[in-house]
Amino acid sequence: MDIATRVYNHKWKIDPIVRSLIDTDFYKLLMCQSVFRNKPDTQVTFSLINRSKHIPLADLIDEGELREQLDHIRSLSLSRGESTWLRGNTFYGKRQMFRSDFMEWFEKLRLPPYHLERKGDQYELTFEGSWPEVMLWEIPALAVLMELRGRAVLNQMGRFELQVLYARAMTRVWEKIEALREIPDLSIADFGTRRRHSYLWQDWCVQAMHEGLGSAFTGTSNCRIAMMRELEAIGTNAHELPMVYAALAKDDAALAQAPYDVLHDWHEEHEGNLRIILPDTYGTEGFLQNAPDWLAGWTGIRVDSGDPATAAQIAIDWWKERGEDPSEKRIIFSDGLDVAKIKELHTKFAGKTSISFGWGTLLTNDFRGLVPGDALAPFSLVCKAVSANGQPTVKLSDNPNKAMGPADQIERYKRVFGVGAQEEVEVVV
Amino acid sequence: MDIATRVYNHKWKIDPIVRSLIDTDFYKLLMCQSVFRNKPDTQVTFSLINRSKHIPLADLIDEGELREQLDHIRSLSLSRGESTWLRGNTFYGKRQMFRSDFMEWFEKLRLPPYHLERKGDQYELTFEGSWPEVMLWEIPALAVLMELRGRAVLNQMGRFELQVLYARAMTRVWEKIEALREIPDLSIADFGTRRRHSYLWQDWCVQAMHEGLGSAFTGTSNCRIAMMRELEAIGTNAHELPMVYAALAKDDAALAQAPYDVLHDWHEEHEGNLRIILPDTYGTEGFLQNAPDWLAGWTGIRVDSGDPATAAQIAIDWWKERGEDPSEKRIIFSDGLDVAKIKELHTKFAGKTSISFGWGTLLTNDFRGLVPGDALAPFSLVCKAVSANGQPTVKLSDNPNKAMGPADQIERYKRVFGVGAQEEVEVVV
Repeated sequence: MDIATRVYNHKWKIDPIVRSLIDTDFYKLLMCQSVFRNKPDTQVTFSLINRSKHIPLADLIDEGELREQLDHIRSLSLSRGESTWLRGNTFYGKRQMFRSDFMEWFEKLRLPPYHLERKGDQYELTFEGSWPEVMLWEIPALAVLMELRGRAVLNQMGRFELQVLYARAMTRVWEKIEALREIPDLSIADFGTRRRHSYLWQDWCVQAMHEGLGSAFTGTSNCRIAMMRELEAIGTNAHELPMVYAALAKDDAALAQAPYDVLHDWHEEHEGNLRIILPDTYGTEGFLQNAPDWLAGWTGIRVDSGDPATAAQIAIDWWKERGEDPSEKRIIFSDGLDVAKIKELHTKFAGKTSISFGWGTLLTNDFRGLVPGDALAPFSLVCKAVSANGQPTVKLSDNPNKAMGPADQIERYKRVFGVGAQEEVEVVV
Repeated sequence: MDIATRVYNHKWKIDPIVRSLIDTDFYKLLMCQSVFRNKPDTQVTFSLINRSKHIPLADLIDEGELREQLDHIRSLSLSRGESTWLRGNTFYGKRQMFRSDFMEWFEKLRLPPYHLERKGDQYELTFEGSWPEVMLWEIPALAVLMELRGRAVLNQMGRFELQVLYARAMTRVWEKIEALREIPDLSIADFGTRRRHSYLWQDWCVQAMHEGLGSAFTGTSNCRIAMMRELEAIGTNAHELPMVYAALAKDDAALAQAPYDVLHDWHEEHEGNLRIILPDTYGTEGFLQNAPDWLAGWTGIRVDSGDPATAAQIAIDWWKERGEDPSEKRIIFSDGLDVAKIKELHTKFAGKTSISFGWGTLLTNDFRGLVPGDALAPFSLVCKAVSANGQPTVKLSDNPNKAMGPADQIERYKRVFGVGAQEEVEVVV
């Protein structure tokens, strides 16, 4: 035994869940740089939203422990090696993806305060401040809540019971990997940071994917793991950009334009595989119909809500309509994926266009059925921008179960974006 | 990382499979003491016998590696702590089970030379010398061969593939334990040293049994693990005693008496739960019919071949016939057990007599179906006394597939012990 290490470990007051500011999704850093450049003074509020109301988070997680973990995150700053990696690494084939002014700001950053209050059996957890700072709370806050909820269950288990729990979970992941191996020309990445079972578990899953799938595994959205395991960091942009841009719009005309303004800013900053449209924030069909032609020249579309096959077909039809060749385009599926769905979508669209998969919760947190009462099953927890400069944000999505915002604003947005009836899809994770 | 430990580990020339002289079955030590007292000058030959001829051991295991492992075992001697444990521990409720003269001899012991030769795709591995020394080769020799055969397969596997292999094996063992939990008043011990997958794996299985079954797990036959994990060491006596006694018999009358001579010597040395009859060496039925009455007073019978339910019923009937109450007796099942068989035997005999199980290969080496070509499946390897003072040994067993010895001697033994037709039972492990 290494005595010194053991003694040193005694000095930890807690077992920190998030130990690095880059233990976060790569797209957060890309978006953060974009916001830092284009909208640095926007004041936003982010808020925790537990879509799975039947999970009584405040009963399951001790408030003191939650505060300790969140306080620990506020003590983190970018380490020298992390800064070196962000400055020196190649991302999507490009050097110096992160500009000097952004890196200098990031090196000084500490995350802003949080507001935590128990409300019934749920927690109200909000973050307020300037957008580029507050937005970096989303992923670590979710990871902390998911892992604390897991720890409460794991604390009750015996040593060998725990070993067998992980043995079962490992076997399950590996069987998924074995099944994925049969798919020719697969391209799949880990998108599972936010709802992972734990950091160590995500790290294990990523390494297993790397060994088991070889080059079919294209990388991980988790920057810290990408750095430690020398893998590609994967990700582009998310709903928070159009949601905040839309909230800042002064009138309906500006609102209708907001989602394109986002991609206009993005267009100036990025090219190639980073030019991926996320069209569903206010309804995919309307967004594509009204999109300017330069957007049809982008590399691909990410499908993140609604029926994925329908959405993918809409994308392909849209490219054809705009004179683009779908076989030169890419569709990235990232919503509610598991092996069967991946296989189904691959079978349906292989040959028509390039496809890839951003596999999240059911890669890094498939502990379904492994403990009594299914107390480790993943659930649908999000942390979203709910207001910007005092205006509420709205998301419509292609699935009304993923919509959010005040009812009157939802009606206004539906009118402005011409969104009619939508098909409900159950949100599991 | 502990640098010193890592540097120290560089000094190992090999990764030794057997690292302790008491990494062996407890009954070997009990029998060794008995032999040391009663037949110390007997010259014996032990020989490896691969009953699973389809496993080409010499193709699977490198001869150089095998020699290194066997040479390492010859370098072992009893450590001070092991000696202290054997002298100071309570075995079967008794202190000083091992007498001083035996312990002084054991402390000086190094195992005698071995003879190894490749014959076709098999190894001829024999040990010659005085009985108390040679007999201690059996278990480590088997463990080395089983583990080297496994290592040859494992060497081809990736890191995560290996993790998942063990995850699957752990899950399987745990599911067996969960199934065993449902049996009321279960009494089960680990008898799996000789055909274990590896030492670390046996150690894991024993600890999992301990956590998962609590007091229903009565201990392990492995002395080193019993010592390290502070568990009961379990075991009584084996076929080698009657086989060697029988080979030493001067005529047919002495031969007919030999199996009882063994137990007569044992009777003088041991009492209580160590008075367990192993009746099948030359046929259970004849053995019991001709047994002296004092044997009916013994605590129990171990069933190690043939159909276990039939053998158990024979034992119960015999006790009744001799005026003994079977409900005060114990039957120990130790042949080819797995969960279904354990449940079946428990259901059949619970209430009629006390029953317990010595669970071997399918506890500590159930890697069936876990790698391509089933290359880690256990197989039937034994290491037996084949001659004593120049006379061949014979075993008839209650299963002709487990019989051994020269054909003419088998005929003679069948005649002397009145063994007729026997039912063949496939020997899997």
